[in-house]
Amino acid sequence: MRTALGIDIGGTDIKLGIVDEAGKILESGTIPTRAAEGPRAAALRIDEWYRRSSGADPGVSAAGADCAGLIDGSRGWLYVSPNLPGWGGIDLASLLREALRLPVTLDNDVNCAAWGEYLHGAGRGTEHFICITLGTGIGGGVVIGGRLYRGWQGLAGEVGHQVVTEAGPMCTCGTVGCLEAAANAASIVRRARDLIADGGASVLPATGPLTAREVFEAATRGDRVALEALAMTGRALGRGLANLVHLFNPEVIAVGGGVAGAGELILAPAREAMREMLMDEVLAEVRIVPAALGNSASLVGASMMAFATAER
Amino acid sequence: MRTALGIDIGGTDIKLGIVDEAGKILESGTIPTRAAEGPRAAALRIDEWYRRSSGADPGVSAAGADCAGLIDGSRGWLYVSPNLPGWGGIDLASLLREALRLPVTLDNDVNCAAWGEYLHGAGRGTEHFICITLGTGIGGGVVIGGRLYRGWQGLAGEVGHQVVTEAGPMCTCGTVGCLEAAANAASIVRRARDLIADGGASVLPATGPLTAREVFEAATRGDRVALEALAMTGRALGRGLANLVHLFNPEVIAVGGGVAGAGELILAPAREAMREMLMDEVLAEVRIVPAALGNSASLVGASMMAFATAER
Repeated sequence: MRTALGIDIGGTDIKLGIVDEAGKILESGTIPTRAAEGPRAAALRIDEWYRRSSGADPGVSAAGADCAGLIDGSRGWLYVSPNLPGWGGIDLASLLREALRLPVTLDNDVNCAAWGEYLHGAGRGTEHFICITLGTGIGGGVVIGGRLYRGWQGLAGEVGHQVVTEAGPMCTCGTVGCLEAAANAASIVRRARDLIADGGASVLPATGPLTAREVFEAATRGDRVALEALAMTGRALGRGLANLVHLFNPEVIAVGGGVAGAGELILAPAREAMREMLMDEVLAEVRIVPAALGNSASLVGASMMAFATAER
Repeated sequence: MRTALGIDIGGTDIKLGIVDEAGKILESGTIPTRAAEGPRAAALRIDEWYRRSSGADPGVSAAGADCAGLIDGSRGWLYVSPNLPGWGGIDLASLLREALRLPVTLDNDVNCAAWGEYLHGAGRGTEHFICITLGTGIGGGVVIGGRLYRGWQGLAGEVGHQVVTEAGPMCTCGTVGCLEAAANAASIVRRARDLIADGGASVLPATGPLTAREVFEAATRGDRVALEALAMTGRALGRGLANLVHLFNPEVIAVGGGVAGAGELILAPAREAMREMLMDEVLAEVRIVPAALGNSASLVGASMMAFATAER
């Protein structure tokens, strides 16, 4: 079976893997990104890992890279990445190609996660599939008729920046009302704080540091404030899901990313809010499910994109 | 050149036309719908018009029908139509096929309008195109990679029922915050009334009947309240446009329907509001343009769909 090199470039670390065509990660590693040293230095360090790993054997036919940001996947162009300051406006795929001497694809991390989930995870067997990642930000990838949908400039699927309200805090993009601001990890902490300030009894601290994970852990132990904070974020997410269903009419929407770790405590209220908003019962047949591949969805998806390119 | 019979079924009238492959309407007519008599009676009256018209010549290779409502265009199934009470849950395409003894396609009126505009109107030459109709309701059709996108159950493109706010009046679908309630014809009248109630000086009446067209006419004569009401509805529309751009990344969005007759008085503030919300300048390269085919977009598009079926 052929193998590909997967390259998942984050702001802090680069996850690397040798992945076979069945989506199995045969070998994996992590190296620091050191974004300030620039993309060329990172490419050389990726090549170093690749040469040391068993992936240097001739079975590796191509490499697939991904990172967060605005990327035109059809030509491997990185417009801008929030986690990689100074890397914007470059042909990152070509840069990696030169270092690795392999065909290289580049796409948005969320598009790659969606592609991985579509082929080997929660989207298997569907034709109209959307994968959302919920974390610090909210991203999405859309598969239409068995193909990743990129749009005119390769920038489709920015599900986190659809506006769903005129209230709420300003999003990192500068707009008030984005789904991202209404349903990301920070929204859970914000809601828990607000409920405590309003007199809600909770094991959570009223001041000082607090993470979404801590809220989730309190919720699993039955803390009412924590449960309500998760449910409120779930309902906000449901507004975004209803919009996606009205616009794309997908068969399955998978929800992954850090916040999705809260599982049904988020997804159940999200489904309920979504169903209340859908204009017809037929549309409510969409299935909202947890993503299946966890943290490795992007790495697997990027690798699968590499195979497709190697075939050309 | 081949010709098709176009059938645009409204709540009051059925518009009929013999349309050639270039999108030219060679002959047209209108008959009453009489929805209460049921779809079979209407089909027989459509056939009667067709037999009388020159379209009964052998050049007519197929018929294409459309109406408002939830329709699975891939199989010609009408789930439910707001304007045709009692016609829901039927295989309307087959019913018309039996009466006309021609191959018949059926799709949503807005999908047909989008398809007509894509082939012969504002979407010509694009690959990623969305057509919105603004009127009593708000609908949309999405063309992706040169094909009409219908989604899993044929119900994609319900752009009017995306939620863009938590404020505002309830939509006809029962949800608060839909784009339709925020930017339809009634929203213009409502805003003009509110501005007058707040002390705005206007030639418009503070009470009694008022239509969106009257507001538009006052605006063209420089009435400040009317201009501001149109601009407010334009800005609400802009929120929906920004969502469509973030999700679909289209090259062109065409805006048609009755309200679109207000032209730049709506579209200019819509573009401005949209641009303020887009997360990147690259996305703002999308063009927001008036639709080109006017009232006949659905009839032309439905006819073009008929040709595609006749080819199979």
